[in-house]
Amino acid sequence: VKLQRLAIFGAGLIGGSFAAALKQAGAVEHVVGVGRSRANLERALELQVIDTIAIEPRSAVRDAELVLIAVPVQQTEQVLSEIAPHVSASCVITDAGSTKQDVVAAARRALGSSLIRRFVPGHPIAGAERSGVEAASAALYRDRLVVLTPTPDTDGAAIACVRSAWGLCGARLVEMDAKRHDEVFAAVSHLPHALAFALVQMYAARPHAEELVGFAGAGFRDFTRIAGSSPEMWRDICIANRDALLAELDAYLSALQALRHHLAAGDAEALERIFQDARAARSRWLSGPSSD
Amino acid sequence: VKLQRLAIFGAGLIGGSFAAALKQAGAVEHVVGVGRSRANLERALELQVIDTIAIEPRSAVRDAELVLIAVPVQQTEQVLSEIAPHVSASCVITDAGSTKQDVVAAARRALGSSLIRRFVPGHPIAGAERSGVEAASAALYRDRLVVLTPTPDTDGAAIACVRSAWGLCGARLVEMDAKRHDEVFAAVSHLPHALAFALVQMYAARPHAEELVGFAGAGFRDFTRIAGSSPEMWRDICIANRDALLAELDAYLSALQALRHHLAAGDAEALERIFQDARAARSRWLSGPSSD
Repeated sequence: VKLQRLAIFGAGLIGGSFAAALKQAGAVEHVVGVGRSRANLERALELQVIDTIAIEPRSAVRDAELVLIAVPVQQTEQVLSEIAPHVSASCVITDAGSTKQDVVAAARRALGSSLIRRFVPGHPIAGAERSGVEAASAALYRDRLVVLTPTPDTDGAAIACVRSAWGLCGARLVEMDAKRHDEVFAAVSHLPHALAFALVQMYAARPHAEELVGFAGAGFRDFTRIAGSSPEMWRDICIANRDALLAELDAYLSALQALRHHLAAGDAEALERIFQDARAARSRWLSGPSSD
Repeated sequence: VKLQRLAIFGAGLIGGSFAAALKQAGAVEHVVGVGRSRANLERALELQVIDTIAIEPRSAVRDAELVLIAVPVQQTEQVLSEIAPHVSASCVITDAGSTKQDVVAAARRALGSSLIRRFVPGHPIAGAERSGVEAASAALYRDRLVVLTPTPDTDGAAIACVRSAWGLCGARLVEMDAKRHDEVFAAVSHLPHALAFALVQMYAARPHAEELVGFAGAGFRDFTRIAGSSPEMWRDICIANRDALLAELDAYLSALQALRHHLAAGDAEALERIFQDARAARSRWLSGPSSD
């Protein structure tokens, strides 16, 4: 892919890193950025992540061959509605939202039956604890997973264009349907985030919370790192993926009730079995400092 | 403190690092190691973390001026019972167990009213995901917290000896009573470990678990890192600190039920408030990549 013009809605960590990687690959001539924070856009310009700032969505997408929507998921529909009348005939549109069924539904409403064919729903799996263009990096997506969830209506050529762009960022690509995507990420991402937020908030509400947490070790810091993520973004994700997240939360509540039962009964063997299964599984799945 | 002879029960990460740090500080002449794993002891000898291996507890403590018990907490009482008749008149005994009320109770039973005065219950807060003497390091305790929970019976001179030894390891020392210790660590350590084990085990029990977790990002890896910890050690900790852990688990179950209620009701504002409180608290408490 070689683009004359790329438009980025939301020139923060996710959008900025996409632009920076394509620029570094020599795959784009001109990047135009749109966003809510003027200061962030000015900084993106200084960092040469974007080449111009567009005030109006319509001017941003004029002549753009590829548009990336990297805004909080709840705003996706509004952005798509604003640009729909103005995109060129050959323009491909993609997004970076963490939920996909709601984005597909929003795109159907905003884009209509013709333009929807050139919309490729996507989700790059890249750390979102940091945010803003300052954190953007051409290397962010190297060896990271990008999930695309094209609908049966999506053009093959549009998919190929988006695959190619992510490929130039160094990402590994996977395709699945939007429903499966939302179930998978409710489990491996949305639930852990909700759990970490709930734990930290519980302690934050206590008197002498600061003193309490002063005794925390590296384990607590690791466990709660994701509670440093954007509250607005995670609010949107939880609401957008409510059903799948509720199912995971209920499964987890049952698991905790079982653990509570073993603990109250003083059943050391049952506890050890849970811990052993967890540790064995984790070391099968993930490399890390968990050898013995 | 300058020791002729230090005895270490459990020459793994915790005991081995203590010995290595005191050796590096030139504060000990001779370290004798005792443990369940002959292979680990041989390795500790090779690494010069210990100078001799003792087969019998009685020979290990003969002439020792300081004894560190760094075995799984449930074994502490047995070790103390074995050494009690053999320690010298001036010997100071300390431990590294993650729970303290049970250790104090075990020490009272095992040591009797005279020797209990020279027992200084301790808990170094140092990563326990790795284990074994291979992971031991003279630098492990540098700037780490060590909590001592002396009883009203503990000799001031014994406390001073143990403080001095940990100080030479580079640790920061805090004293609190055993009950408060157990409550604090139920909150900032034991609950997070139980939660991480339960989450990983829940996914491990599903069909296609491996595929599911293949989609996990860095957040999941951080969140579940503590599920790589020793199942045996954590079984002991949970049982030993059952009451405080049950209280924290129940508080967390309530917090999750509240979160579930907001989610089911689609109450985005309530969710965002929880997430915001958590993020703000975490960034007050801990430094880390959670700026925006």
